[in-house]
Amino acid sequence: MKIRIAQFGLGPIGVECVRLAAEKSWAELVGGVDIDPQKIGRPLGDIAGIALPETARVHGSFEELLRVARPDVVLHTAVSRFSQVVPHLEPIVRAGISVVSSCEELLFPQLKNAAAAKMFDELCRKHNARVLGTGVNPGFVMDTLGICLTGVCRAVEKIEITRVVNASLRRLPLQKKIGSGLTPDEFRALFLQGKMGHVGLVESLALVAHGLGWQIGQITETCEPVIASHDIQTKFLTVLKGLTCGIHHRAEASVDAKSITLDLQMYLDAENPCDAVKIVADPPVDFVIRGGVHGDRATVAVLINAVPLLLKAQPGLRLMTDLPVLRAS
Amino acid sequence: MKIRIAQFGLGPIGVECVRLAAEKSWAELVGGVDIDPQKIGRPLGDIAGIALPETARVHGSFEELLRVARPDVVLHTAVSRFSQVVPHLEPIVRAGISVVSSCEELLFPQLKNAAAAKMFDELCRKHNARVLGTGVNPGFVMDTLGICLTGVCRAVEKIEITRVVNASLRRLPLQKKIGSGLTPDEFRALFLQGKMGHVGLVESLALVAHGLGWQIGQITETCEPVIASHDIQTKFLTVLKGLTCGIHHRAEASVDAKSITLDLQMYLDAENPCDAVKIVADPPVDFVIRGGVHGDRATVAVLINAVPLLLKAQPGLRLMTDLPVLRAS
Repeated sequence: MKIRIAQFGLGPIGVECVRLAAEKSWAELVGGVDIDPQKIGRPLGDIAGIALPETARVHGSFEELLRVARPDVVLHTAVSRFSQVVPHLEPIVRAGISVVSSCEELLFPQLKNAAAAKMFDELCRKHNARVLGTGVNPGFVMDTLGICLTGVCRAVEKIEITRVVNASLRRLPLQKKIGSGLTPDEFRALFLQGKMGHVGLVESLALVAHGLGWQIGQITETCEPVIASHDIQTKFLTVLKGLTCGIHHRAEASVDAKSITLDLQMYLDAENPCDAVKIVADPPVDFVIRGGVHGDRATVAVLINAVPLLLKAQPGLRLMTDLPVLRAS
Repeated sequence: MKIRIAQFGLGPIGVECVRLAAEKSWAELVGGVDIDPQKIGRPLGDIAGIALPETARVHGSFEELLRVARPDVVLHTAVSRFSQVVPHLEPIVRAGISVVSSCEELLFPQLKNAAAAKMFDELCRKHNARVLGTGVNPGFVMDTLGICLTGVCRAVEKIEITRVVNASLRRLPLQKKIGSGLTPDEFRALFLQGKMGHVGLVESLALVAHGLGWQIGQITETCEPVIASHDIQTKFLTVLKGLTCGIHHRAEASVDAKSITLDLQMYLDAENPCDAVKIVADPPVDFVIRGGVHGDRATVAVLINAVPLLLKAQPGLRLMTDLPVLRAS
């Protein structure tokens, strides 16, 4: 029995999800959902540029898709905030269908939306649906992987997770999202308005704390622009020396003498991109993924790889710490 | 409600388990089991050099312990082979009590003892007991960790896991176990007799294959002595130039064009100890733990950290790939 998948959101990540799911012997694509009138009604295979059964089409809403197809799971790649994702997911959950979503705040919605997350969890349980927020970041390199490595430790004092991304190798939307070309003052003003910085960083930190069973206090966040030390030319844009070429976003929290620090640097022409974790513990753990994990390619992989694991989990709003260890599927 | 723990086997690793469990707020030690007449009848706290309730004593068998205490889980650190562990665990499982064991072959007993493993799994289910074989190696650095890292990959072509251990920093039993001081010919003869090499390496490989859903063929194994290039003096022994100072044990298997390679080097004065995982995939992963993970310290941590996760799992003979992601507890 194959797992029937529908894709909700057909931007670049959604399209890549369709392509990867189509390669999996255990998966069957039954349709897509998008609000773009240019896409509605067309075969999903056309949108993704692959061969799929003609019956798998793009619909304007989940309800319309449900009239002609019943997926086991919906891959959702459309929004970043929990308040945005709930209206998308409610009808899916009420149909008893599970969801793997790239919504960053859904990684640990308990952090900013405790009451709403609890209600949503109850809705999932009532309708026998499983919902998971994941991806590579948030979802893996700055949270789940660090948690996993503490498994060899007798007691953890401190965990420091660092990710350095060379944004020059990424898509235009990411190059814009990190503030490329803004003056430092424009950047800082946008951060204060909640319009700059990496959505999901504090959720990653909260998931690490949850995994370790630590009752952390306030999370402190800083987000500074990385300033171009020379004129930078990417495939998509140019940033002059002195302007913003990326972000340096940090989040920290502590409990007693123990602390968690997440340090994310995403900027153009970053040298030595990597994912690194230092765990001060007995024994200590000091690891690095040389070159780092590619954001978009890996996010799609994590979303797809989580599907079979999620479907075997208990109904409810699930966390990465609830699932069996992730693996290529 | 604390988790009641009994310790089966009071060698150095067992004693360290007792000490670490005593530090955990969620654990309560109720007694120990050992065959050493010098230990039987004594308070467990005396053996471990820590303060424990007088009621927690060492018994000559599990049956005797069960007369006075009912643990929720038994930590078992006594033998390496599945055929040896089953007689130890049967009475425990029949009492409906779960087990976390360092028995190397128990990591994936399906490999060499498929029929017996199936029967044992059924026995566990019947009596509502959960049994897990784990540790740092096998159990984490050369199997679970590599599996976890494939989670960011779209498709895996090859996985190469390397562990280099500086045996000079380890206990005398390990320095002896790796053949220190043997002539190369003596070493090779012992390997052919199954008396040399790292027990659990092929089980690690089989677990990786299982995690990835790969139906591998024959596992090929080589185990060569590492030859001392100079006279080596450790805290415990001396190895003259030209004699064996450690092992280089490899296991490989493939399916179609895909392959898994495990490469373990444990020798005296090893330079650059590390745990490394290279995954040839899209995206690729090049992971290294600088300095490596300390064997004995981490094995005890993994055994203890697995306890709360195992008790929430389904009854049966469980694998590391069945459990939620490991974490410090």
